[in-house]
Amino acid sequence: MASEIYASDHIIIKALDNGVTIIGLTRGTDTKFHHTEKLDRGEVMIAQFTEHTSAIKIRGAAEVLTKHGKIRTND
Amino acid sequence: MASEIYASDHIIIKALDNGVTIIGLTRGTDTKFHHTEKLDRGEVMIAQFTEHTSAIKIRGAAEVLTKHGKIRTND
Amino acid sequence: MASEIYASDHIIIKALDNGVTIIGLTRGTDTKFHHTEKLDRGEVMIAQFTEHTSAIKIRGAAEVLTKHGKIRTND
Amino acid sequence: MASEIYASDHIIIKALDNGVTIIGLTRGTDTKFHHTEKLDRGEVMIAQFTEHTSAIKIRGAAEVLTKHGKIRTND
Amino acid sequence: MASEIYASDHIIIKALDNGVTIIGLTRGTDTKFHHTEKLDRGEVMIAQFTEHTSAIKIRGAAEVLTKHGKIRTND
Amino acid sequence: MASEIYASDHIIIKALDNGVTIIGLTRGTDTKFHHTEKLDRGEVMIAQFTEHTSAIKIRGAAEVLTKHGKIRTND
Amino acid sequence: MASEIYASDHIIIKALDNGVTIIGLTRGTDTKFHHTEKLDRGEVMIAQFTEHTSAIKIRGAAEVLTKHGKIRTND
Amino acid sequence: MASEIYASDHIIIKALDNGVTIIGLTRGTDTKFHHTEKLDRGEVMIAQFTEHTSAIKIRGAAEVLTKHGKIRTND
Amino acid sequence: MASEIYASDHIIIKALDNGVTIIGLTRGTDTKFHHTEKLDRGEVMIAQFTEHTSAIKIRGAAEVLTKHGKIRTND
Amino acid sequence: MASEIYASDHIIIKALDNGVTIIGLTRGTDTKFHHTEKLDRGEVMIAQFTEHTSAIKIRGAAEVLTKHGKIRTND
Amino acid sequence: MASEIYASDHIIIKALDNGVTIIGLTRGTDTKFHHTEKLDRGEVMIAQFTEHTSAIKIRGAAEVLTKHGKIRTND
Amino acid sequence: MASEIYASDHIIIKALDNGVTIIGLTRGTDTKFHHTEKLDRGEVMIAQFTEHTSAIKIRGAAEVLTKHGKIRTND
Repeated sequence: MASEIYASDHIIIKALDNGVTIIGLTRGTDTKFHHTEKLDRGEVMIAQFTEHTSAIKIRGAAEVLTKHGKIRTND
Repeated sequence: MASEIYASDHIIIKALDNGVTIIGLTRGTDTKFHHTEKLDRGEVMIAQFTEHTSAIKIRGAAEVLTKHGKIRTND
Repeated sequence: MASEIYASDHIIIKALDNGVTIIGLTRGTDTKFHHTEKLDRGEVMIAQFTEHTSAIKIRGAAEVLTKHGKIRTND
Repeated sequence: MASEIYASDHIIIKALDNGVTIIGLTRGTDTKFHHTEKLDRGEVMIAQFTEHTSAIKIRGAAEVLTKHGKIRTND
Repeated sequence: MASEIYASDHIIIKALDNGVTIIGLTRGTDTKFHHTEKLDRGEVMIAQFTEHTSAIKIRGAAEVLTKHGKIRTND
Repeated sequence: MASEIYASDHIIIKALDNGVTIIGLTRGTDTKFHHTEKLDRGEVMIAQFTEHTSAIKIRGAAEVLTKHGKIRTND
Repeated sequence: MASEIYASDHIIIKALDNGVTIIGLTRGTDTKFHHTEKLDRGEVMIAQFTEHTSAIKIRGAAEVLTKHGKIRTND
Repeated sequence: MASEIYASDHIIIKALDNGVTIIGLTRGTDTKFHHTEKLDRGEVMIAQFTEHTSAIKIRGAAEVLTKHGKIRTND
Repeated sequence: MASEIYASDHIIIKALDNGVTIIGLTRGTDTKFHHTEKLDRGEVMIAQFTEHTSAIKIRGAAEVLTKHGKIRTND
Repeated sequence: MASEIYASDHIIIKALDNGVTIIGLTRGTDTKFHHTEKLDRGEVMIAQFTEHTSAIKIRGAAEVLTKHGKIRTND
Repeated sequence: MASEIYASDHIIIKALDNGVTIIGLTRGTDTKFHHTEKLDRGEVMIAQFTEHTSAIKIRGAAEVLTKHGKIRTND
Repeated sequence: MASEIYASDHIIIKALDNGVTIIGLTRGTDTKFHHTEKLDRGEVMIAQFTEHTSAIKIRGAAEVLTKHGKIRTND
């Protein structure tokens, strides 16, 4: 039996401006920044929650799609 | 068999003002503040419930999306 | 295989007045208050049922969202 | 693998008058009162079925939300 | 891993008159009365099927909500 | 881990006349009557299929609700 | 952990005439009659598929409800 | 823990004429007739797929209900 | 615990002409004909995928119902 | 406990011309043709994905039904 | 208990021109081309994700159906 | 029992210009680029989340389909 299931939810982020920052915060006893990704205007990132990421912070103008709906930062 | 499932529900918080505070409260016998995250106007945070967080408190003007609907703080 | 699932249902409480009190009642043979959280007007709390909390009591003017619908206290 | 699932159904009770009584009845061979909670007008209680509670009795004017619909006591 | 799941279906009974009787019948080889609960007019009882109860009998004027619909006794 | 799941389907029977008879038939190699319950006009019984009951027979005027719809005896 | 799940599908048969015959046929290598139940006009029987019954035959005027729809014998 | 689950799909066959033949074909390396059931006009048979039956053949005028829809033989 | 689950999908084939041929093709490293069934006009066959059949070929005028819709051969 | 579950998805192919070719491609490190089936005009084939087939190629005029919709080759 | 479940999602590709190329990319630490399939105009290929393929690249004019919708290459 | 389940979600990317870059970011303690795929105008790529990829970044004009909706880069 072979299988690979990576079923955690994902979110989609589209940068509406240069320099949008996507910050992954650590799962576990400490909640620290563990990764920062920069997007330029028009770039899209699709990211899952993982063993290491249980929260995501977004700075800069972006459109965000999640299973609970769509939201825009910086309105 | 390889798999990673981080299926807990998440909420989306969009700050409508500077200094919105998102406070994670500990799961377990004590319910204490274990993490505080500050958002400035227009920033968005997407956070899961985890082994360490079973409640989230939000202070300051924000829009909150959850699977049970949308709510605004500070109306 | 790594996974973390905290799938219990959550409720959303928005305080409509200062001093709204959210009281967690203990799961188990005794049903006692084990935690009290105060919300000021406009603050929002999102809380799961946990190993320690099987009932939640709300005092003061608030809007409550659950999977069975929306209800307002103090009408 | 860490997980906590408290998935039993819950009900929401809103007191429409002072002195609403919510009585938890024991699961098991005997069906006895094991806990009584008092609500004043406008207070809301959200309660799960648990290892100790398999029935709930409500006295006094209240609005009750469950997955099978909404009902008012004392009409 | 901690979890508590009491997922059996429940029914909601609202007494429309004094002296409504809710009778739990035993699961198992014998089907006997094992518990009787009295409701006065306007009182509501919410009860699950359990290890000990596989049938419920209702006497007196009442409104009953179940997953298969709503029914009134004594019409 | 504590749990109790009694998830078998149930049916709802409302007597429209005195002397409605609800007969439980045994599961297993023999299909015999193992229990008879009498309902008077207006009484309601809610019964699950169990380890001992795999068929139910209804005599007398009654309204029956099941997951496959509503049916009236004695039309 | 206590549980009892008898989740097999059931069918509902309402006799529209006296002498409706419901015949249970055996599961297994032989398909034989193992039980015959007689219904008089207006009587209702609700029966599950079981370890011993994998087919049911109905003779005489009856209304039959199943998860695939409603059918009348003897039209 | 006691349970009995016979969850295989069933089909409903209503004879529209005398002598409708329902033939069970064997599951396994050989596909042979293992059972033949005769229905007279108006009779209904409800049959599950089982350890011994993986195909069913119907001869004669009949109405057949399955989860994929309704079909009439001999149109 | 007794159970029998034969949950594989089934298809329904109605012959619109004499001599409709239903051919079962073997599951496994070789894909060969292992069974041929002939239907005359108006006959219906209902067949599951099994340990031995992973493909079915139909020759001659027939109506075929599957979970993905209805199709007619020989149009 | 006896059960047989062959739950993989299936597709339906109807040849609209003579000589439609259905080619099964091997699952595994190599993706090679392992079976070729010819359909004449009007013939229908219903095929599952299996341990040996993870891709199917269709040449010639055909109508194809899958769970993601209907498509015609050779338009 | 016999079962075979190949439940991974599949996609459908219809070539709208000669020489459409479908490229399977390897699952695992390296993401390399492991298989290339050529389709001529009007040919259809239906392919699952497998132990060896976690990404598929399509070159040339084609119509692609997936569970997230339909898309055309080369518009 | 043979089975292969690769059930992780997939996304569809269609390049609207030459040189669209799809970058796979590593799952695990470090979030690094582990694979870069180039698409020319009109090419489509369908990619799953895997043991090695938990985030995907897209640069250049593209249309992206996911289970949460459709989004265009570079608007």
